[in-house]
Amino acid sequence: MVPRVEPLSTRPTKDVLTDALLDITAQHGLEQVSVRQVAAAAGVSIGTVQHHFPTKDAMVTAAFTEVVRRIRERVAGVALGPDVHRNLTAVLRELLPLDERRATEVRIQVAFAARAATTPSLATLQAGILADVGEAIAGAIARAGRGAVPPEEARALARIALAAVDGLALHAVSSGSWDRTALTDALDRLIDMLLAR
Amino acid sequence: MVPRVEPLSTRPTKDVLTDALLDITAQHGLEQVSVRQVAAAAGVSIGTVQHHFPTKDAMVTAAFTEVVRRIRERVAGVALGPDVHRNLTAVLRELLPLDERRATEVRIQVAFAARAATTPSLATLQAGILADVGEAIAGAIARAGRGAVPPEEARALARIALAAVDGLALHAVSSGSWDRTALTDALDRLIDMLLAR
Repeated sequence: MVPRVEPLSTRPTKDVLTDALLDITAQHGLEQVSVRQVAAAAGVSIGTVQHHFPTKDAMVTAAFTEVVRRIRERVAGVALGPDVHRNLTAVLRELLPLDERRATEVRIQVAFAARAATTPSLATLQAGILADVGEAIAGAIARAGRGAVPPEEARALARIALAAVDGLALHAVSSGSWDRTALTDALDRLIDMLLAR
Repeated sequence: MVPRVEPLSTRPTKDVLTDALLDITAQHGLEQVSVRQVAAAAGVSIGTVQHHFPTKDAMVTAAFTEVVRRIRERVAGVALGPDVHRNLTAVLRELLPLDERRATEVRIQVAFAARAATTPSLATLQAGILADVGEAIAGAIARAGRGAVPPEEARALARIALAAVDGLALHAVSSGSWDRTALTDALDRLIDMLLAR
């Protein structure tokens, strides 16, 4: 007989737990997050947390999936105009740690990537998300205007753009030493290079 | 009275432990490495391992420091010629997961970065290494030849180059889906963009 998990009331859902998880991660880092902390922050039993996040991988994946959902929502909300440089800047800025909220998101993405590097099921999820985001960036580059950019060329440039932005984000949060101006300048220069071709 | 740590014989040094650590990491990932496994692989007591690696951070830092030392040694051994594109390619290839050995190194770098993102002392180490590697790349770019590149401009381009290469490496190991040809093509295209300016 499997012991019954404490029934969920109308409030404590997986969303509430994920929010608690993200809050704790913002303060202490994903490595330090425990089932006990999430339970306390969400006001539920340890059993409830274990039901939704049976493993550390499940926890990291839930946090990562929520981060990706939030980034997508913000990117979808970007008002696109006729200026491609501006459009690309607006989209890629959402991936950089330009405020505390985005810095936390980057920390979660890095923690997920570190686990995905040795866990095939997480790597599959990561591959799908990189492909999706890459397609979106390739679309923006293909509409660049100075002569049509062939789709394959746009895709290759998008892979480099996404790698460079994720690399800038990785370096910023892991060295704790870059400021907003440096990140914004680097992004501007990167987009110049991408669109100069 | 602090219990005495088992004395080191001539063989089990920190280097032997670090080698064992890297071997285990290559197979199972840094998250799964335990003091017990390292002790068994190196043929020493658990106390000896704990003496050299008192915390998980100490273990990750030792592995990372060794990886950085190996990369530096290989980069220093690159034969530089008159062709800047070729020189940059040769140097940056050492940072990409183009074989199993380098893929393991990247996994360790990513694991370290994930911890550094929430641990200030590790972030300081990371900042120093990024600055060093950035300077080396900036030096190579400054010697590009098509008119002198001002040092500040070379440094800015080097930051983007290093971010893009580390981002490509991060995406490759965390998605498990990129091949050598794709990585080499992306690097080639990136260096074209950097030197076209």
